[in-house]
Amino acid sequence: MPTPRETFLSALRREPVARTPWWIMRQAGRYLPEYRAVRGNHEFLAMVRDPALAAEVTLQPIRRFGMDAAVIFSDILVPCAAMGVEVRFEEGEGPKLAPALRTRADIERLRDFDPRRDTAFLGEAIRRVRAELGLERAIIGFCGAPWTTASYFVEGGTSRNFEHAKALLHGDPAAFNLLCERLVTNLVPYLALQVEAGADAVQVFDSWGGALDARTWREHLLPHVARLVRETQALTKAPVILYVNGASQLLEVLAESGADAIGIDWRVDPREAVARVGARCALQGNLDPSILFATPEAVERETRRVLAGFREAPGHVFNLGSGILPGTPVASMERIAGVLRGVA
Amino acid sequence: MPTPRETFLSALRREPVARTPWWIMRQAGRYLPEYRAVRGNHEFLAMVRDPALAAEVTLQPIRRFGMDAAVIFSDILVPCAAMGVEVRFEEGEGPKLAPALRTRADIERLRDFDPRRDTAFLGEAIRRVRAELGLERAIIGFCGAPWTTASYFVEGGTSRNFEHAKALLHGDPAAFNLLCERLVTNLVPYLALQVEAGADAVQVFDSWGGALDARTWREHLLPHVARLVRETQALTKAPVILYVNGASQLLEVLAESGADAIGIDWRVDPREAVARVGARCALQGNLDPSILFATPEAVERETRRVLAGFREAPGHVFNLGSGILPGTPVASMERIAGVLRGVA
Repeated sequence: MPTPRETFLSALRREPVARTPWWIMRQAGRYLPEYRAVRGNHEFLAMVRDPALAAEVTLQPIRRFGMDAAVIFSDILVPCAAMGVEVRFEEGEGPKLAPALRTRADIERLRDFDPRRDTAFLGEAIRRVRAELGLERAIIGFCGAPWTTASYFVEGGTSRNFEHAKALLHGDPAAFNLLCERLVTNLVPYLALQVEAGADAVQVFDSWGGALDARTWREHLLPHVARLVRETQALTKAPVILYVNGASQLLEVLAESGADAIGIDWRVDPREAVARVGARCALQGNLDPSILFATPEAVERETRRVLAGFREAPGHVFNLGSGILPGTPVASMERIAGVLRGVA
Repeated sequence: MPTPRETFLSALRREPVARTPWWIMRQAGRYLPEYRAVRGNHEFLAMVRDPALAAEVTLQPIRRFGMDAAVIFSDILVPCAAMGVEVRFEEGEGPKLAPALRTRADIERLRDFDPRRDTAFLGEAIRRVRAELGLERAIIGFCGAPWTTASYFVEGGTSRNFEHAKALLHGDPAAFNLLCERLVTNLVPYLALQVEAGADAVQVFDSWGGALDARTWREHLLPHVARLVRETQALTKAPVILYVNGASQLLEVLAESGADAIGIDWRVDPREAVARVGARCALQGNLDPSILFATPEAVERETRRVLAGFREAPGHVFNLGSGILPGTPVASMERIAGVLRGVA
C-alpha cells in the first residue's frame, strides 16, 4: 500500500496511482481558526522566520484534513529580502518592497545570498515538519517564478497592471534579462536548500504569469524558467511543479519548460489542458477557490467535475486553481477532503 | 473617400476598408491634462450626469488625436443606479454599491427603469457630441455585460475574487439567472436610447468575464449576452461589439454570441483569435496598455505588431487590450496616432 507521500510523488512523475493525491495552495492560512489563533500573536514575517511557528502552521491543515502533502509555510518574497531589498507586510495591504528596482543600476546592486546562512530558518522549519510527518506525507518547498519575483522587485509591491515591470521588459529587455538571470542564480540553491532539508518536491509560483501573452512569456521568461527547472532537477532530483495563475494562453509554452507538472487555474478547461500539454507533464489543479463560498452541494459537485476532467491526464494532483481565500468556510474544505478520501 | 465614421462601421461589418480604424478604451480620461482640468472641479458622477461636461470630455481626445470614433463619457454603473441601488465613487477606491444583492429577495427589489426619463442626460450628451462631430466620426455608446454588472450588484463594488457573485451563480443559479434577465430587460432599451440619440455602434463591456471558465460562461451567461445582442441589433440596427477582458479561454463561446465584433485583451494572440473566431465576427484590440509606459520605440514596434497580427481578420478595429491607464504618457498616444494615421 503506497503512502500518501508516494502517491503524491508518483502522480507528479506520471506513474500509475490508486487514487488522486491532493493538497491546497495556502492550505496553512487565514481560513483556519487555529492559524488565526497563532497569527493573532505574531507578525507574518516573524512567523515565516520562526521555525517552530512555521512548522506548526504547516502541520495544522494536515492534522485537520489529511492532505497528501504539506506545503511549507513561507513566502515567495523571502529571497527578495535575502537579496538586499527591504520587504514589509502591512495589515490589509499587499507587501511593499523598497527600493523598487527600475534601472540596470538598481538591479546591479542586488546581492547574491547564501541560503544556508541567510534563510537557515526555512531549512530548520522543513526539518521540524519532517520530524513530525515522518515519511508518511510529502513536503513541498517553493519559490516565486522569475516574472512574478521580478515584477515584485520592479513594481515595489503588488500591482494591478505591471506598468513598470512591462516597461522594463519591453523598453530595456537586456536589463530585465539581467534581473531574471540574477534571480535564477539565487533561486536554484534556495530550492536546493529546501530539498536538502526534506522537501520532496518544489513548486515555482508564477502568480502573475497570466498578465503576459504567450509570445512575451516565451521570448522573455521561458529561458529563465527552463534554466531554473533544469538546474533544480539536476541538483536535487526532486520533481518541479510550475504553477501559473491565468495560464489559458500559456499552456503550450509552459509544457516546454521541462517542469514535471504544470499547475493551472480554474479558467482552463481540464480536458483542454490535457489535450494541449499532452504526455509531457502531469497537471495540478484546478477548482475555483470562490466556489468554496457556495453551498456544500455545489462544492462537492464541482470537485467531482474537476476530478473527472483530469481523468485522462498522465498524472493529476488535485488542488484549487489558486490559493484558498480568507473567509473560506471550513465546511467546504471538509467536503473536499471527504470527496478526495473517497476517490479510488 | 469614406469618412472615419464609415471606415469604422465598415470594419465592424467585415466590409473592405482602406485603412484600420481605431479608438481607445477610456480615451477620455485621466491621462489627459485637459480631462484632469475639468475633473478637478467636478465629481465623477456629476460629470457623467452633466451633458455639457460629458460631451466636452468625450470630444477632448478626438481633437487631440483624431480617433475614428468617440466613445461617450459615461459609466457602466449608470443603469445600476437607475435600477434603484445607491452607487458612490470615492477617490482612490473603486465604486461602492449599496445594498449588495445577495438573495433572490434582494434581486426582486430592483426596479425597471425608463431610459428616456431616468438617463435622459446620456441621450442629451450624445446629441451634443453629434452636433460637434457631424457625420465625420462615429459615436460609440455602451453598457456593462450581464456578468460584469451582476458582479458589481452582488459584490457591492469591485472584487478581486468574486466570491459572492460566484457563490450565487453556483449555489443558487435560478436567482443568478433572474438577476441577469432583469439586467438584459433594462439594458436593451438603455442601449436603444443611446443609438436613438446618435450612437452608431454600442459596446458591451464584460470587464470581469475573464474570471470565469468557458463552461460557466457558456451555461450561465451566453443566453443572456446573446439575448442582449440580438434584441439590441433588432431594435437599433447598430453593430454590437462584445468586449471581454481576459478572454483567452472564451473566444469560441463569445463568437456564438451573435456580436458583430469581439473586443479582446492583449493576452490573446491576434492570429490565434482570427483562427478561433473565424469569419463570424470582426475583432477589436489588443495592445497591452502597460506597453504605453515603455519607450516610444517599443510603443511603435508593438502597435505595428498588433496591426500585422490582425491582417487576416475579417474586420479589425485597433484598440488597446483594456482601458488606457492613468499616468500613461501622452507621447505614447501620439506615437500610436502617428502609426494609425499612416496605416494604408
